[in-house]
Amino acid sequence: MRIRPAVVNLDHSLIREISDAHMGRDNLIALWFGEPDTPTPDFIKQAAMLALYDDHVFYAQNRGIPQLRQALSTYVSALHQRPIGIDRLTVTGSGMNAIMLATQALIDQGDNMVVVGPVWPNCRETVHVMGGETRVISLHADESGRWSLDLDELLAACDDRTRGIFVNSPGNPTGWVMPRAQQEELLIAARERGVFIVADEVYVRLAYDMAHAPSFLDIADDDDALIVINSFSKSWSMTGWRLGWLTHSPAMGEVFAKLNEFNIASPTTFVQHAGVVAITEGEEFVLSLVENYRRNRDLVFQRLAAMKRVRLSRPEAAFYAFFSVDGMTDSVAFAHDLIEKTGVGLAPGLAFGPEGEGWMRLCFAAEADTLSRAMDRLEPALS
Amino acid sequence: MRIRPAVVNLDHSLIREISDAHMGRDNLIALWFGEPDTPTPDFIKQAAMLALYDDHVFYAQNRGIPQLRQALSTYVSALHQRPIGIDRLTVTGSGMNAIMLATQALIDQGDNMVVVGPVWPNCRETVHVMGGETRVISLHADESGRWSLDLDELLAACDDRTRGIFVNSPGNPTGWVMPRAQQEELLIAARERGVFIVADEVYVRLAYDMAHAPSFLDIADDDDALIVINSFSKSWSMTGWRLGWLTHSPAMGEVFAKLNEFNIASPTTFVQHAGVVAITEGEEFVLSLVENYRRNRDLVFQRLAAMKRVRLSRPEAAFYAFFSVDGMTDSVAFAHDLIEKTGVGLAPGLAFGPEGEGWMRLCFAAEADTLSRAMDRLEPALS
Repeated sequence: MRIRPAVVNLDHSLIREISDAHMGRDNLIALWFGEPDTPTPDFIKQAAMLALYDDHVFYAQNRGIPQLRQALSTYVSALHQRPIGIDRLTVTGSGMNAIMLATQALIDQGDNMVVVGPVWPNCRETVHVMGGETRVISLHADESGRWSLDLDELLAACDDRTRGIFVNSPGNPTGWVMPRAQQEELLIAARERGVFIVADEVYVRLAYDMAHAPSFLDIADDDDALIVINSFSKSWSMTGWRLGWLTHSPAMGEVFAKLNEFNIASPTTFVQHAGVVAITEGEEFVLSLVENYRRNRDLVFQRLAAMKRVRLSRPEAAFYAFFSVDGMTDSVAFAHDLIEKTGVGLAPGLAFGPEGEGWMRLCFAAEADTLSRAMDRLEPALS
Repeated sequence: MRIRPAVVNLDHSLIREISDAHMGRDNLIALWFGEPDTPTPDFIKQAAMLALYDDHVFYAQNRGIPQLRQALSTYVSALHQRPIGIDRLTVTGSGMNAIMLATQALIDQGDNMVVVGPVWPNCRETVHVMGGETRVISLHADESGRWSLDLDELLAACDDRTRGIFVNSPGNPTGWVMPRAQQEELLIAARERGVFIVADEVYVRLAYDMAHAPSFLDIADDDDALIVINSFSKSWSMTGWRLGWLTHSPAMGEVFAKLNEFNIASPTTFVQHAGVVAITEGEEFVLSLVENYRRNRDLVFQRLAAMKRVRLSRPEAAFYAFFSVDGMTDSVAFAHDLIEKTGVGLAPGLAFGPEGEGWMRLCFAAEADTLSRAMDRLEPALS
């Protein structure tokens, strides 16, 4: 009776550890998950109800219903200002599942993935599920708490078993945005080495000082060894719906059709129909969401920056404030303690790898009023 | 730029090959997929709409919402007449996904899974995705077309890299039902060898001459190395919903919590709420469905058995007629030809492995009228 050691040894989520211990507490302000506190907008929920009414309840095509792939093609082509055909698009059962499919395509036992950290732990763990190794190269925070990547360091970590370089930009938890010039440099280096870039761009629309964050899809050729992860969860407030998509070279379409078949067959059919409506009619919603999050970002940044023990830079993208706390060395203990003392639930930096120790993550995808109350409570503990 | 050879070499579905070539044809009767031709019943669709209205659109617990795990616990405990607690139940994003999670838990590169065939190809391909090997032991058909398993043959195929024995009973495509005595024998043998039984029991309710098909859950201890796959697709007509569940030892709960997190996080939240209603209020529906399928089974069996070139036994369970055709050696060519000549779409036996060559699969989860018309058309070609 043998369960794979690689699976037994998977890290469990430290965010879940904190939240499980305190969820349901009276008067709690939970900002620990990467999830908005407002539900999916009505026009998307209604689209799902209509699709149910219309009996879109049967198996769908492995790569997604044609209407959704077409809608995504129109959407991403406009966003990245270059034609991206449906042959380059595969619908997945969440951004998480898209990462798993990409990892299954690339990572044999003994292979490795080089990962820019600190980062959402799940992209590392999928590599471990496949029996691979991850090499995390940490971003560096300067004195102002602003993160940057040393590309030479990243490339030096690659060897002949490196199958992919995982870049999550805009980054969770750091809010780091990979600059365009660095994307161009990395793309050239990856081409030379024959290594895939796996770009998790689920926060690409949530950028506050530019139209959208730089994307590898702005600059890559159709046939580049590039797999881009995307999701409906963040920009359309559809976390519980489990819908995402992959953008890849045309040659990989057949691979992802097969991997979808053997993982989930195809995402929930009526959810895909709602996805069509989210994409084709959701632009106004996305823009208003970004506007809200920008105000939240400013509120949270101003308040946190004024607290004595806190160091952070103004988040440029995504919906997290990631800040270091002077004198704090155990972020998990600190998170527990903070909840006891203030009733505010944050995610400990260690949840994002040892690179994140000393830092805390706060999700600002919440009502402004809730965030203000959280700041009032955090102030004594962080000053 | 290297995609894993194991993934590039995955078999594509021969059923999809046939259906893609002919779908949309005028006057086609498509009986090639394992899917009912009637939609999900209204009470389940309405439950999903209500859950959307109630904003069940956020992330859910990794192992599924507590209400659904509790409902499943009550349901499976009653079905198998022994207490099966929620600690033994994990909700998954389809039966397919449940198979993938089980395979990820067991199969390292170089390990093998012994599989009873002919069988739905996807359980083999998940093993290949994980870099493992499958050893298919074929059921034997007697002169009347009735299938049976030689257990000694199955056990002789196991070696020290065998991590699991995959048994799909009631079987797709054969309709084979593993007898209780053989389940008991296999359970004892698997215990002795420390090998998991992975039991795909998605057709357990669709049995026509008994209350339900024998299940390993009727006889196993809580802590046995047993993973049982189940799904809402077949018994509740919810194919496109992507909802299933795993029953396992309490010790494996943590493993499947992590694997769910790193594969899809959790199935679609409002779909899980609809699943609660399907399970708690669906018994009448399931019984009427079985009654319909029993009539279909009789209709299809009587008609097919009277055709000269056909050999088949009366299906005891599942919703397929699997029959051999005298003089036919290439089931794929035959399937194409049959569509051209009769407009009836069937699945070729080869789609279920070389063990299935010489046979054809017809899904009788269709309106009786449709099945009668299909029989009228098939008669000249098969007599």
